[in-house]
Amino acid sequence: MALQIKNGLFVTLEGGEGAGKSTQARLLADHIRGLGYEAILTREPGGTPGAEAIRHLLLFGEEELSWRAEVLAHMAARCDHLDNLILPALQRGAVVVCDRFHDSTLAYQGYGVGRGSTERLDFITGARRLVGREPDLTLLLELPREQALERLESRGGRTDRYEGQAEAFHQRVLSGFDAIAKAEPGRVKRINAGRTPEAVSRSLLDAVSEKLGHTACASDA
Amino acid sequence: MALQIKNGLFVTLEGGEGAGKSTQARLLADHIRGLGYEAILTREPGGTPGAEAIRHLLLFGEEELSWRAEVLAHMAARCDHLDNLILPALQRGAVVVCDRFHDSTLAYQGYGVGRGSTERLDFITGARRLVGREPDLTLLLELPREQALERLESRGGRTDRYEGQAEAFHQRVLSGFDAIAKAEPGRVKRINAGRTPEAVSRSLLDAVSEKLGHTACASDA
Repeated sequence: MALQIKNGLFVTLEGGEGAGKSTQARLLADHIRGLGYEAILTREPGGTPGAEAIRHLLLFGEEELSWRAEVLAHMAARCDHLDNLILPALQRGAVVVCDRFHDSTLAYQGYGVGRGSTERLDFITGARRLVGREPDLTLLLELPREQALERLESRGGRTDRYEGQAEAFHQRVLSGFDAIAKAEPGRVKRINAGRTPEAVSRSLLDAVSEKLGHTACASDA
Repeated sequence: MALQIKNGLFVTLEGGEGAGKSTQARLLADHIRGLGYEAILTREPGGTPGAEAIRHLLLFGEEELSWRAEVLAHMAARCDHLDNLILPALQRGAVVVCDRFHDSTLAYQGYGVGRGSTERLDFITGARRLVGREPDLTLLLELPREQALERLESRGGRTDRYEGQAEAFHQRVLSGFDAIAKAEPGRVKRINAGRTPEAVSRSLLDAVSEKLGHTACASDA
């Protein structure tokens, strides 16, 4: 029987391309299981069949949607992911580790595509409030763009739709993540991703363990 | 050169199945053109290629979406319809006649599928506020369910996904439209759809003409 946390613990990993999020998310879920908790590893885009279907339409559909329609379609996919996977797992006391979530929408659609226009940031923030369920802890993997590019190139080939964007786009995305971390220091913890995978992994587990400790104390009270 | 209205005039037709909305919407657009205005006739579900693509996914997709995801996907389609068709037409001073809009989502998803639960009505209303652009005038075609059924049967065969629902569902939808009309008497005008098509058509044109007169006065001032 796994240890249970009251209302679960929702952890998201965020950051630009090449920061090692996917690998670290997998390692983190394994380590959390090692502590005796149920850990669910999931990711966006994707997460549930319904969310995948909507995102497939967004990525491969021939129709050009308005930017507001695109944001709401992303949010529809996220709602399905929350309602059919994340929230039920949290309700039964699990730790959910999600590779990308709300902050990626704000960073990529708001700061990257939308160049940080107030109209776009406000619309995304409004939709985000409607969808709800902010993460309890967000781990922002930070890596200077030059190092990220070196890693992406050593992986060989870029496949993501955003990886082919102009450099200025990626700089705007990173500045978006930076603005989010500044605005919510209580939720967002900055992690230096320029170290060895082992060192990064230890920092992530430390941050989660601290939260688990706090949560345990709180539910004891 | 068509007459122009400052900020356009956005007219929606609402009501249950069998009330004659599609026929009346077409007649209304023709009559408005006869008055010298540009009239755009459109409908939901549908309206733009992007909106059609999203709704196709909702109607024919194999994945079962959560109800919140379904509402947001409908709203994403509506945003595309607004941004790529309705708002540009209103901006150039046209009259837009739309067969079904926000009220149908509230009546069908909120009152019909959701049985009027506060959680669902609140979520739909929140999404509606985010999407914005309430109609200037809504014409609610009212017909007792018994008469609507007679008309649907004489048409031969039911094809709409909602037409095959249980009777109780349709009664909830009609009570939803009734609640909306009571809540917003300034925007929603009840039209008795149990009369001849000509009489109904005249009532619709009268209601629109009155609005056009008011709008003209307002833009003269």
